[in-house]
Amino acid sequence: MTEAPQRTVRGEQTRSAIFAASLDLFRERGYEATTMRAIAERAGVSLGGSYHYFPSKAHLVLEFYRHLHELQREACAPVLARERDLGARLRGVVRAIVMTCEPFHDVSASIFGTVADPASPLNPFSADSRPVRDDVIALFGEVVVGSDARIPDDIGAELPRLLWLYQMGVLYFWMLDRSPGRLRTLEVIDETSDLIVRLLHAANLPILRRSRQRILALVRSVAEEALSGASPAGPAGQGR
Amino acid sequence: MTEAPQRTVRGEQTRSAIFAASLDLFRERGYEATTMRAIAERAGVSLGGSYHYFPSKAHLVLEFYRHLHELQREACAPVLARERDLGARLRGVVRAIVMTCEPFHDVSASIFGTVADPASPLNPFSADSRPVRDDVIALFGEVVVGSDARIPDDIGAELPRLLWLYQMGVLYFWMLDRSPGRLRTLEVIDETSDLIVRLLHAANLPILRRSRQRILALVRSVAEEALSGASPAGPAGQGR
Repeated sequence: MTEAPQRTVRGEQTRSAIFAASLDLFRERGYEATTMRAIAERAGVSLGGSYHYFPSKAHLVLEFYRHLHELQREACAPVLARERDLGARLRGVVRAIVMTCEPFHDVSASIFGTVADPASPLNPFSADSRPVRDDVIALFGEVVVGSDARIPDDIGAELPRLLWLYQMGVLYFWMLDRSPGRLRTLEVIDETSDLIVRLLHAANLPILRRSRQRILALVRSVAEEALSGASPAGPAGQGR
Repeated sequence: MTEAPQRTVRGEQTRSAIFAASLDLFRERGYEATTMRAIAERAGVSLGGSYHYFPSKAHLVLEFYRHLHELQREACAPVLARERDLGARLRGVVRAIVMTCEPFHDVSASIFGTVADPASPLNPFSADSRPVRDDVIALFGEVVVGSDARIPDDIGAELPRLLWLYQMGVLYFWMLDRSPGRLRTLEVIDETSDLIVRLLHAANLPILRRSRQRILALVRSVAEEALSGASPAGPAGQGR
């Protein structure tokens, strides 16, 4: 990611103004219909000036991901400070991302619609989205480590990444959810977070040991390929 | 889906020519860069004439899905006729879709890139893609019913839909796979199809009964919402 070369107070203010303008416009018009020109105008900055801070709309979306993650972190901090129960911690963190994304629901298809495109820097496996992805995975690391659940080491090593995938699944459901108030998403979080905890208990059964080892080996190898760069065994694709 | 009003031999030939031209152009240029005008030109049909058979590019992609599914069915027919082992049947069917899609790998991101967009008729949960989806799910029904595996009724009722989801996961991996010859995808199919069979065995354990019931209830309710129309609890969204 290209950063603004000069990190002055004035520069930070301009950067923030551009980002705030992009949030407003994404929410009002969606991603596709928002142009860099409209963002610059709304922020009261020249078009060239805005490119100086964000070379493309994709860079603004990556900043948006970071922003959502920071709000998520803030929102779930009290739950993580208070609860030791794994299910409660997991539920708190995933509720936090849904509530944080909620104001953007109407335009979520427009913003998240390109995530399935492996060529897009916005796809969650891309090299460009790696810094935020790593921070989200680290948050799920805290969820696990700070709980009183006894998780075997081999599962513990992969669990944060698997929970990140789970969060993406919940966000996909939320995006499609048209139940009134989207309460269905909250119910699905209740049910799935509890089920995950149950299945983690079951994974300790001797009869499931061999399957568990194979599943973890598979997750490890796929994750190493998929998350090492833009795509499995592909070039890192930095800075696209 | 709007069908050509007159199903004459001549009409069928024109329809096939337009579809074949679209396949060529999608493969050469990708989905976005291919226009209806270029398709009509390649097929030697007027632009108005081509809209008569396919009102939009999305309609051509839905026809493409159907075409892929028919090739898949043909490719896996010998395996399904020969094998009773569930793992072998499952492997054969999923290998068949990957080998069928393989010629389109370079443009798969362009063609499948919009599948995450709930507003797109091409997203796999949409009402428009339902006929093909139902046929794919029915194929997985054959995989299960024709096998010698003893699957409890409650699992058997949901399994075809779950296997369809599994196939979509494999296709997503295949799309991202940049290993030479994409042999990694074939390995992942070997490993996951075998694991699925093992986990189905494990699901019979009394200690897992409660989790199994809860997982199936969740799958059932989510599937009813997500697959009943374009999106959960939303309008059917036909004909978008």
